[in-house]
Amino acid sequence: MKMVGKPRIVVTNDDGIHSPGLKLLYDAVRDLGEIIIIAPETPKSAIGLGITLHKPLRIHEVEVWGVKAYTTNGTPGDAVHLAVNVLSRGKVDLVASGVNAGDNTSIQSILSSGTIGAAIQASLLGIPAVAFSAQTSNPRRFVINEGSRIIIMKRVIREVVSFVLKNGVPEGIDFLSINFPENLTSSTKAKIVPPARRRFRGVIEKRLDPYGKEYYWFYGEPIEPEEGTDVYAIVKEKCIAVTPIALNLAPQSVLENKSVFKLTEAICKAVESLRI
Amino acid sequence: MKMVGKPRIVVTNDDGIHSPGLKLLYDAVRDLGEIIIIAPETPKSAIGLGITLHKPLRIHEVEVWGVKAYTTNGTPGDAVHLAVNVLSRGKVDLVASGVNAGDNTSIQSILSSGTIGAAIQASLLGIPAVAFSAQTSNPRRFVINEGSRIIIMKRVIREVVSFVLKNGVPEGIDFLSINFPENLTSSTKAKIVPPARRRFRGVIEKRLDPYGKEYYWFYGEPIEPEEGTDVYAIVKEKCIAVTPIALNLAPQSVLENKSVFKLTEAICKAVESLRI
Repeated sequence: MKMVGKPRIVVTNDDGIHSPGLKLLYDAVRDLGEIIIIAPETPKSAIGLGITLHKPLRIHEVEVWGVKAYTTNGTPGDAVHLAVNVLSRGKVDLVASGVNAGDNTSIQSILSSGTIGAAIQASLLGIPAVAFSAQTSNPRRFVINEGSRIIIMKRVIREVVSFVLKNGVPEGIDFLSINFPENLTSSTKAKIVPPARRRFRGVIEKRLDPYGKEYYWFYGEPIEPEEGTDVYAIVKEKCIAVTPIALNLAPQSVLENKSVFKLTEAICKAVESLRI
Repeated sequence: MKMVGKPRIVVTNDDGIHSPGLKLLYDAVRDLGEIIIIAPETPKSAIGLGITLHKPLRIHEVEVWGVKAYTTNGTPGDAVHLAVNVLSRGKVDLVASGVNAGDNTSIQSILSSGTIGAAIQASLLGIPAVAFSAQTSNPRRFVINEGSRIIIMKRVIREVVSFVLKNGVPEGIDFLSINFPENLTSSTKAKIVPPARRRFRGVIEKRLDPYGKEYYWFYGEPIEPEEGTDVYAIVKEKCIAVTPIALNLAPQSVLENKSVFKLTEAICKAVESLRI
């Protein structure tokens, strides 16, 4: 991939414009190109690929860390579209999303993550994209006062973003998802791993409000990870998990499934039987 | 798959409890088992797999069409978890989601659809799931005053739900997505098709509010569909599109990609270089 002029990089996330992970990401890539920072005004975790069709979107110019940035009332997915269509008039060379406060390992987390949602939207627009997430037991301070951890994350982000700017996203892959383990040292290894199916068991806790009415809190309890998965890599092996994502939701093997063929025949017959 | 007693079927959607598509779905399956109806209070289109972690969830018992049902302030994904964990204490045999007012064809629509999001959440819980969506040029009346169309949709839904209750979701498949074409007659055929990549080109329209400030409407313009895809099947061939979905986001071929291997090596070296 050859570029004319400086590459244009959109930096976004789902934890909101004031997320320390967004600053870390910006700091890591700031001299690799012209950077457009746009993120939701407020955290939009677990919003997935959501986009906003039923209400107006706003863009506000703000200053963060002494740098011009944009906020939106929309989702991270909206942020990508606004960056491409409004802020840069079509030319975007890479979308970098993150660094999410909390890993996005497992299919369960990947498909519900706003950080990943931004990368998916970019990918559907044909823009190379990378999502970065970091395991943390304390989202509030996951990049604060942790000098060497920040240095390592920045170095890896630069490596990945430079690689993709130079080579594009590898053939047959839609985007890359990188997950950092909480424990990150210069001995940490990187590993290519597929996503586990689930990361959490959903728990719903019933409570009573002051008026005696029931309400519920939804949270996730970690599941014991299976070897050879992204969750296992970061939790047990304490590796950086490199996960290439292909959005091929119906591979040939699945399209040739005999049972699906039978069902489809049955549908045809059922519809035909309504003919009088 | 053998069942003891009546199967328990959760019926949900993303267009809200008052959606005519939800009633159609309920009517189609009501005598196939014990039915739990739960849907968002208000439409939650394009919310994807989103779940609600940061605010309390509520469940309200309501009556719709003379039948007991539940509404939630959460997403369709939340509705599935609430149905499983709160309303049915664990035993759910099938989740049927839809009928969405508007087709959910293409990877773009599949991953951002709340209707599909409910099916994905069910599938991640190991519960057989089917999503139903119907192409329409007029979402407000897509099932009103269209007698034969409703009869055909109901017949197909019954066929699919009965099939999955009896046989489970076919091996290697996570859930089934069924899309009805707008034009539906007893001559309509059903077809197994993979999702197209995109259904819409996102357009962002700039407007000025009464105070002279810019705001934006995000909408999608249909893309000319590619042959052999779900979009082509419903739009051009006017077939019922049967799409088996496998959530295998990182198949072996992608994990063995040489370029990803090189990048991972580069990450390892970069991290190691920080050792002093």
